[in-house]
This record gives sequence, C-alpha cells and structure tokens, in this order.
Amino acid sequence: MTPDHHAIVRRFWSTANAANWDAFAALLSPDLVYEVPQTRERISGREGLVEFFRTWPGAWWAEVVKTIADAHSAVTVINFVTPTEQMTGITFFELREGTITRLTDYWPSDYDPPERASAVVQRY
Amino acid sequence: MTPDHHAIVRRFWSTANAANWDAFAALLSPDLVYEVPQTRERISGREGLVEFFRTWPGAWWAEVVKTIADAHSAVTVINFVTPTEQMTGITFFELREGTITRLTDYWPSDYDPPERASAVVQRY
Repeated sequence: MTPDHHAIVRRFWSTANAANWDAFAALLSPDLVYEVPQTRERISGREGLVEFFRTWPGAWWAEVVKTIADAHSAVTVINFVTPTEQMTGITFFELREGTITRLTDYWPSDYDPPERASAVVQRY
Repeated sequence: MTPDHHAIVRRFWSTANAANWDAFAALLSPDLVYEVPQTRERISGREGLVEFFRTWPGAWWAEVVKTIADAHSAVTVINFVTPTEQMTGITFFELREGTITRLTDYWPSDYDPPERASAVVQRY
C-alpha cells in the first residue's frame, strides 16, 4: 500500500504545532537533509531537525493552507503565525517508505512589483 | 481517465519556452486567475496571461527542476534564467478537466539568515 503522503506532511505540521517531538521525529528518516536555499542553510540528520524546531524562539503556529502529494514527494504551503507577524512558508518534502528524507524550505516575502510591460496586471 | 497533471504543467513551461502561444493558451481555462501573493498582482483570464507571458521583456528560459501533481493540483519549481540572472520560481496550479484554472506564483529571493537559537544549522 502506498503511504498517504498528504497525511504524513499534515502530521508533520500538527505534531510540530503540538510540540509532540516524539511523534514528529517518528515521521523523519535518521539521515534526512533540511535546506533553506534562500539562506544556504542546511541541517543534516533527524536529531538536528527536531532540535531546530524544538528550540525555535517564541510562540508560533503553522496553519496548513495547501498540500499536494504524489508517489515520492509532497509540498505544503503554511501560514507561519506568531503573536506579531505572519509569513508564508513553502516546504517541499521527499519521502521513502513513509518517512521524510529531505525537506526544502522557502520563505517568500513581499516585494514591490516591477513596472510591467503589459497593462493586464492588476493589484489586489 | 485522469489527465496527466505532471505532463500538463511541464507542457505549460515547454510551450512558453518555445513561444508557442497557441499551444500555451490551449492549456488554460478562459476564466483562469493568476496571482503573485508577494506583490498582490493579479491577472484575470486566459488572454491576459498569454499577453503577460508573450510581452515579458528580454530573453528568458524556464528550466523545470521539480514537479509534484495530484488529482486537482500541481506545483513546479523552475530556474528562471535570463542572460544576466537566475531566479527560483514556484508556481502552484489548480486544474479542472485537463485545463489550468488558477496559478499562484512565488519568487523567493536570497536573504541573510537570522541568528539561530541552535547550533545544528550549517551554511552551504
């Protein structure tokens, strides 16, 4: 039976929100790699990722707004909510035999739009 | 038969790269919505999106580095390559009966990493 990758990545965020680090760690491959391409940051190994999440400063909550999943991969879009701000996080997951082997995290922030060559673009 | 959403979103980029705007438009729902949440830009309708792509200034090429797709959605990660720079683009697609009904585009750019509470993070 194919593991339900939608369910696994939703559980990744629900266990993190609950600070249930044992259940969180159970989703992760011991040799996973976590990367943030925008900052060129990397964490190697399950214990490191649990430590990174467990020690994240301040209160926060991840609200999952979208998941897409197929045979080997998944992606989540979250609202990362703290008492003072809200950010969009996009996390790509690779999975093998029901555990997460690789995570790639993006944090796109607002920017001023360029002048467009075309008049078809509106602001909202 | 379920439409092959992997193939459709790959074709989105291959027809754009080829400037084959008839084939590009054939993938799109007439009433599609395209949004860039970071700039709060929006394009409504197939003709607008074709115009936006067709009039994009300068030479560019989208190299697809990842696709994930399921029953109603897909996502692509591209290297958007121009003669002078390279950017990562993340595009979420919603599809209905084999045509694209909604696109949400993110352009995450590099930033300096914050000081981390944990020593598990390395740079690469």
